[in-house]
Amino acid sequence: MKRLIITMLLLGFTATLGGCQMAGHNPHTGKIRHVVMFKFKDDATAEQVAAIEKHFAQLKHDIPEIVDYEWGTNNSPEGLADGFTHCFLVTFNNDAGRAIYLPHPAHKDFVTHLKPILDKVMVIDYTVKTE
Amino acid sequence: MKRLIITMLLLGFTATLGGCQMAGHNPHTGKIRHVVMFKFKDDATAEQVAAIEKHFAQLKHDIPEIVDYEWGTNNSPEGLADGFTHCFLVTFNNDAGRAIYLPHPAHKDFVTHLKPILDKVMVIDYTVKTE
Repeated sequence: MKRLIITMLLLGFTATLGGCQMAGHNPHTGKIRHVVMFKFKDDATAEQVAAIEKHFAQLKHDIPEIVDYEWGTNNSPEGLADGFTHCFLVTFNNDAGRAIYLPHPAHKDFVTHLKPILDKVMVIDYTVKTE
Repeated sequence: MKRLIITMLLLGFTATLGGCQMAGHNPHTGKIRHVVMFKFKDDATAEQVAAIEKHFAQLKHDIPEIVDYEWGTNNSPEGLADGFTHCFLVTFNNDAGRAIYLPHPAHKDFVTHLKPILDKVMVIDYTVKTE
């Protein structure tokens, strides 16, 4: 019985680690990171910016190919952000996931709402390497 | 005994999830992502660029405050990378970790080697949010 408990515990660890990887947290899976930076127009209101932040976060619910999503506002002390204030990190399992995301109606609708208050955008994608 | 097995299994899951968080893979821990983008000078050789890529990866071994590190070269089909070719994602547990990293001699030495072949750099940091 002791051996059974140990075996089931190991199964538990394995299953949970698998869950971590499937959630896109394992840098060894070769996932694609889609890094998006925004600078909003000076006359964009706090309410308009908050609506875009909320809208972007909604996309992970509308587009299952988004396997991980996070974002934040610039707090670098280095002063090298070129005016960009927002950074979003969207993760796809592979090229196919990104290929579904980019033309997805939910993404296109987001861009339509974004454009009127956007000053500039920068996007850089990479397939994750750790060495 | 059945209840004991279930309890120990749950402990296993909890302990492993805790491990994921400690490894900096849980976006809910408020970690800082330090996003660094490079465009190298046109006359930088492939060997010089490869040496910088290797040097940056070495920093996680020299500076324990780097709790997660990944990077890659731009493969976005959108053409919005403003000439930047490299993106590095460095993770710190908090402001204190970043405050140790930025002036760290190993980081300063890296920058000294980088500058002669660097055309431009962009840096944006954010404390992770998921909604």
